[in-house]
Amino acid sequence: MGHALRLARRGLGNVWPNPAVGCVLVRDGRIVGRGWTQPGGRPHAERMALDSAGSLAAGATAYVTLEPCAHHGRTPPCAAGLVGAGVARVVTALTDPDPRVAGRGHRMLRDAGIPLTEGVLADQAAELQAGFLLRITQGRPFVTLKLASSLDGRIAMASGESRWITGPEARAHVHALRAQHDAIMVGGATARTDLPQLNVRGIATPQQPVRIVVSAQALPPLAPQDDDHGPLWRVEGSPAQILSDLGGRGITRVFCEGGGRLAASLLGAGLVDQLVGYTAGLALGAEARPFLGATGWTRLAQAPRFALAETRQIGPDLFHRWRRV
Amino acid sequence: MGHALRLARRGLGNVWPNPAVGCVLVRDGRIVGRGWTQPGGRPHAERMALDSAGSLAAGATAYVTLEPCAHHGRTPPCAAGLVGAGVARVVTALTDPDPRVAGRGHRMLRDAGIPLTEGVLADQAAELQAGFLLRITQGRPFVTLKLASSLDGRIAMASGESRWITGPEARAHVHALRAQHDAIMVGGATARTDLPQLNVRGIATPQQPVRIVVSAQALPPLAPQDDDHGPLWRVEGSPAQILSDLGGRGITRVFCEGGGRLAASLLGAGLVDQLVGYTAGLALGAEARPFLGATGWTRLAQAPRFALAETRQIGPDLFHRWRRV
Repeated sequence: MGHALRLARRGLGNVWPNPAVGCVLVRDGRIVGRGWTQPGGRPHAERMALDSAGSLAAGATAYVTLEPCAHHGRTPPCAAGLVGAGVARVVTALTDPDPRVAGRGHRMLRDAGIPLTEGVLADQAAELQAGFLLRITQGRPFVTLKLASSLDGRIAMASGESRWITGPEARAHVHALRAQHDAIMVGGATARTDLPQLNVRGIATPQQPVRIVVSAQALPPLAPQDDDHGPLWRVEGSPAQILSDLGGRGITRVFCEGGGRLAASLLGAGLVDQLVGYTAGLALGAEARPFLGATGWTRLAQAPRFALAETRQIGPDLFHRWRRV
Repeated sequence: MGHALRLARRGLGNVWPNPAVGCVLVRDGRIVGRGWTQPGGRPHAERMALDSAGSLAAGATAYVTLEPCAHHGRTPPCAAGLVGAGVARVVTALTDPDPRVAGRGHRMLRDAGIPLTEGVLADQAAELQAGFLLRITQGRPFVTLKLASSLDGRIAMASGESRWITGPEARAHVHALRAQHDAIMVGGATARTDLPQLNVRGIATPQQPVRIVVSAQALPPLAPQDDDHGPLWRVEGSPAQILSDLGGRGITRVFCEGGGRLAASLLGAGLVDQLVGYTAGLALGAEARPFLGATGWTRLAQAPRFALAETRQIGPDLFHRWRRV
């Protein structure tokens, strides 16, 4: 299942509105098939694994990070595929909360007499597939907020000069994280001031993330959609309205890169699920521009808390990742 | 020598104006004596190690983290002590730049016909003894600046509420770091607003650090010197003048805990050697109080850079330590 989860990770950012699933087929102690959700969401992981295994799938154990689908869409359901291929046993991590599945995939397997084990590495699978699960259960995507700043939380000098606070290794890492999200989101002021590209550069990606600008005003002249730039969406409203809108459009994972007002409103609404920080080894002073705008909080208890999930050095900078408590 | 360095560390913060030295005596592959500079600076590490070894010192190899002293003070010089005890060989990490030693200790050993190896683990020894070395070579102590803040570099709400941003484990760690410094320094505004204790609490320490308040005004009513509070010194002037003054009084390691103005002036003068950060998993917003005051810098290149030396989790918080580049 650990291997299936690593395969599933490959789909993050390019399979929405579908979940990023991984599947491994094992027969006689050997891996005979591997699959993961393909860019755009199809084929599903199980279909790819079955195809790669061919006749070796018969009698194999299938490890799948999410309950196989049970509904007829453009292709036959994966649960039926596993049955048809003659797998001997199925192991899954999670039940798919999608009402079209919601236990029916598991039932289809059981009804066919296939031994089934559920809940294996469920926590890790839930963490990996948090975006899909949130969209299904709460109608909104998973939100990662990026903070790249000096030791004193500043993102630019008063003049706007910000090249470079963090190093090239951290900036490359940001592109890798962007590639694992369905969309990159910034506030209108940031879009107008910086005219950011909001795309993945320097690494290959099956599809560029959607570019989202939160603004009640017309968009600035950003690059048109092309091979290097995803669709450009202007959204407006409260953070909850915006995320509900994005969930409705199929987005499961959003990477927010500021500015300070948007970050403050998302934090204030309790809608930041993950914070990733890149801290450079310098301090800029009180005149420099802060990462976060005004929050309106007067008491410490109002600030949402995050738990440290990971920390390490990236180039000269300190990387740290936090999950909502 | 690695073991001698670990012993030397025990003296940090309580041996000023002397260096914190470690000494290990090894005979026939067995450790026969161990010593480190004792609180107040005497006995020296070599004397303690020789005393603990007794007659077993004869024929042993002495590992010492700093060149043994050669001058007659209250006690005979350590180089003579090693010769007198009949050690067979001496290994040192650094030459003592103190003009009263400055190679004379090494020469005394050589003149006695004792084989001598110098420069072993010199970098680690220079790092450990940076405070003493700076005081001798530049006349000022080593300065550590502490930063305990939210993810956006804030140390309190606008109201002043700051209990608690970091957790009890980080606060205990601060006390351990205080104990390894000769003095704790804060600015006058911090002293007047917070009436801080500026002492080591919760762990045993041979002596409380000196309390230093940088202020041109009279001191607020801080606790008098007693078993739990070190001497209280008021100092004023530019950062360079203040540190020169402290160096002249024998201080080798200063732990600066703010406030924002003092931190900014020390950083601006290029006089911060080490930065230790405790970052809590929350963000407070632009209204909250910043860690750092105004620096007057208009260009990014003016901000001094620090290199990441260490990072790990302490309780729920992120600890990170940086050294001046």
